[in-house]
Amino acid sequence: MAFSLQPWISQHLQQVESALSQWLGPHAPPGSAWPAPEDLNSAMRYAVLDGGKRLRPLLVLAAFEAVQGRPATASDQAPLRAACAVELIHAYSLVHDDMPCMDNDVLRRGKPTVHVQFGQAGALLAGDALQTLAFEVLTPLDGSVDPAVQARLCGLLARASGRVGMAGGQAIDLASVGRSLTEDSLRHMHQLKTGALLQASVMMGAACAQPAAHAAQALEAFGQAIGLAFQVVDDVLDVTADSATLGKTAGKDADNDKPTYVALMGLERSRAYAAALAEQAHAALRETGLPDTAALVALADMVIHRVH
Amino acid sequence: MAFSLQPWISQHLQQVESALSQWLGPHAPPGSAWPAPEDLNSAMRYAVLDGGKRLRPLLVLAAFEAVQGRPATASDQAPLRAACAVELIHAYSLVHDDMPCMDNDVLRRGKPTVHVQFGQAGALLAGDALQTLAFEVLTPLDGSVDPAVQARLCGLLARASGRVGMAGGQAIDLASVGRSLTEDSLRHMHQLKTGALLQASVMMGAACAQPAAHAAQALEAFGQAIGLAFQVVDDVLDVTADSATLGKTAGKDADNDKPTYVALMGLERSRAYAAALAEQAHAALRETGLPDTAALVALADMVIHRVH
Repeated sequence: MAFSLQPWISQHLQQVESALSQWLGPHAPPGSAWPAPEDLNSAMRYAVLDGGKRLRPLLVLAAFEAVQGRPATASDQAPLRAACAVELIHAYSLVHDDMPCMDNDVLRRGKPTVHVQFGQAGALLAGDALQTLAFEVLTPLDGSVDPAVQARLCGLLARASGRVGMAGGQAIDLASVGRSLTEDSLRHMHQLKTGALLQASVMMGAACAQPAAHAAQALEAFGQAIGLAFQVVDDVLDVTADSATLGKTAGKDADNDKPTYVALMGLERSRAYAAALAEQAHAALRETGLPDTAALVALADMVIHRVH
Repeated sequence: MAFSLQPWISQHLQQVESALSQWLGPHAPPGSAWPAPEDLNSAMRYAVLDGGKRLRPLLVLAAFEAVQGRPATASDQAPLRAACAVELIHAYSLVHDDMPCMDNDVLRRGKPTVHVQFGQAGALLAGDALQTLAFEVLTPLDGSVDPAVQARLCGLLARASGRVGMAGGQAIDLASVGRSLTEDSLRHMHQLKTGALLQASVMMGAACAQPAAHAAQALEAFGQAIGLAFQVVDDVLDVTADSATLGKTAGKDADNDKPTYVALMGLERSRAYAAALAEQAHAALRETGLPDTAALVALADMVIHRVH
C-alpha cells in the first residue's frame, strides 16, 4: 500500500501539539513544588505553541516507528517526550536568535517575535527556561521511561545543542558575517547550526527503540544528509520566496551579508546539491535494512521540496 | 578529631577547578565530531574559570561524602560531574543576569562581566552553551556513571534550574521591582531563584551515593534551609559590604528598588533570621542519622558567616 504522508503528519502532529501544550500548561507539572510564574509561562507558550512545522518532532517519531516496526501509541512516552524536547530546544534557539543583539528580527511564523511581545528580558528568560524544560521533559520521575533511555536521550540532545552543536554553529555564523567561507567551512557551520539537531532528532527517535548498531549508523548518515539538505533549501528559499510565504523576513541572509550556499555556488548548483543530498538520504535509509521507512522517506522529500 | 574546613575546601576545590578547566578546554571532548568554536569557548572559560567561591560544587561533594561515608576520590565520576554541572548552571545564570536587558551589571568577581568583554551576542551564546554543557557533563558516553544516576541527576538539575526553579524565580524577581512583597512572597521568590539550585546541589551529591529515604529527606530540608539563609545573608551584605569586598556592585538591589529581606524586616531581624535558618540546617543534619556530616556543618556555617 502506498504511504500517504499527510494523514501520517496530521495524526502525529496532534500527539505532539497536545503534549507540548500540556508541558507548557499553566499548572505545575507533577513533582514540582511551585507553579511557574505566569509571565514566564506565557512567553514560553507564545514561543512554542500555534506555529512551526514540527519537522524535528516528526523525524523523532518517524525514526522511532521505523526501528520499532509499528506506529507510536500514547503509551510510548519515550519518543513523544524526545519529540517535544527537540522542539523545545529548537524554539529556545529561535527566541534567542531573534533578539536584538543577534539577528534582531521582529517577525517569526507570521507573528511578532518573543522579544517584541514580551521584552528582551522576557525573551532571554523564556529561551533559557525552554532549554531547561527540554531536559525536564526527558527525565520523568514516574518510571514511564527506562532510565538508561533517559540518559541516552539527554546525552544526544545536549551534544547536538551545545558548543559542539547548535550553539557552536551559531557562534561560527556570528563570526562569519562579511567573510567569505569555503564550501567546507560553510558545511561545517551548518552541520553544527542546524544539522546537528535534525540529525539528533533521528538518532533520538531511534534510541527509544534500541536499534541494531548497523541500523543506527545508517540512520545517523540519513540524519546528516537531511540536516544539510534542509539548510541548502533554506538558503535557496531566502532568495526565491517572499516574506508572507516564509512567515519570516525573506532576503535577510543576503542583506546581512551572511555566507550562504546560494552566495557560494549560485542558485542552480545549490538546487542540484539539495537533490544530491536527498539521494544520499534515500540511500542511507536503504542501508538501514529496516522494512518500513516510508515516513522517513516522505519527510526527507518534504524537506527538499518545501516552499517555506 | 576536629574537622578543619580550609584543608577540605582546598583539596576539593582543586578537583573541581581541574575538572571544570578540562571540560572547558579548547579541545573537543571525546565523542564530539567537532572542536568548539574558539570565540565561544573563550567566553565560556572566562565566565567559569578563575573566580567564584564554588559553594555549590562543594555542597555536592560534601553531601556525597556524608552519604557515602568516605572521601570522594578521582574515580568517583558521578559526584565530580554533578559538582561541575551545578557550577556551569550557576555560571550561565550569572552571565545572562548581568546582561543589559536584565541587571545591566559591568562588574562580577572583580572582572568586567562577560557581555562587556565579549559583547551581548557572545554573552547570550556563552550562557546558552554553558547550560547545555551542564547536561553534557552529566551524561558521559564512556560508562563511567550508572545510567540511572545520570537520569536522576539530569532530572534534579533541570527541575531546580527551570521555570519552577531558578529561571522562574528570576522572572518573579523581574516582575517585583518597585513592588512591595510579603515575607511569604519574598521567600517563595528566593526559594526558586537561588534556593532551588543550592538545595539541588545537596540532593545531587546525595543521589550519587543512593541514600536511604530518611536521610535523603533530611538532606532536602538541610538544602532548603541553607538556600534561604544564603539569600538572607546576600541581602545583608548588599547593604553592609563594599564593592571591592563583594567583587560586584554593592548596594545595587537597594538602588534598583528590589524587594530584599533587609528592606522588609530591617538589618538586625534579617541577621537573626539567618542565624535561625542556620540552626534549622544543623538540626536537619542531625536528623539524617549520618555519622559524619562535619563538612556540611562547616559549609552551612560558612554560608552564614561569609563576608562576600
